[in-house]
Amino acid sequence: MHDELARTMRMNYLYDFYHSLLTDKQRGYVELYYLEDYSFSEIAETLNVTRQAVYDNLKRTKDLLEDYETNLGMYANFVKRQELYAELKQLLNDKNNDRTTEILDQLESLD
Amino acid sequence: MHDELARTMRMNYLYDFYHSLLTDKQRGYVELYYLEDYSFSEIAETLNVTRQAVYDNLKRTKDLLEDYETNLGMYANFVKRQELYAELKQLLNDKNNDRTTEILDQLESLD
Repeated sequence: MHDELARTMRMNYLYDFYHSLLTDKQRGYVELYYLEDYSFSEIAETLNVTRQAVYDNLKRTKDLLEDYETNLGMYANFVKRQELYAELKQLLNDKNNDRTTEILDQLESLD
Repeated sequence: MHDELARTMRMNYLYDFYHSLLTDKQRGYVELYYLEDYSFSEIAETLNVTRQAVYDNLKRTKDLLEDYETNLGMYANFVKRQELYAELKQLLNDKNNDRTTEILDQLESLD
């Protein structure tokens, strides 16, 4: 269950970053399954297709989103940036030190 | 000439961000023209194709890179981040103030 939640969250993020590269049809399946939390059966009924078609379409689109992430890494870089920003904010709440400069250098080399 | 330089720089950046989404053939044309600074004639000779084929391939690939940028905006966000990071660095060289926090908030909302 924990793994399933992690997978769902990951798909939500990948969809956020790359949805504009999907077709309307692919977007429809992902939105129903990952965002609206429909089951395969409910999607099959809604779209008037077989459960196998739902499974196949979701699998292909999930693979496509992972391919985009492998090639572009927008989500991975987003995660790294958020971590660095959080650390930077904490440091600025305390006081400036050498680590502040180090973080900013890391931020810049990420892009 | 200034416009041509700006266009070449833009293509270099878009290529940096999105080259992994291009085919080997598309990459070949872009690298020869924008990175190696070959002329259409030199590329035609090198690849044993017509100048028109060179023009068509480069035009299509340039349009494709612009489409990716329209959809994903990685270059536009890169530019915005660099500006904010530069301003942030300057402020940290002086002293902390409210604008520091404002910049960090902007940084986070960009992603």
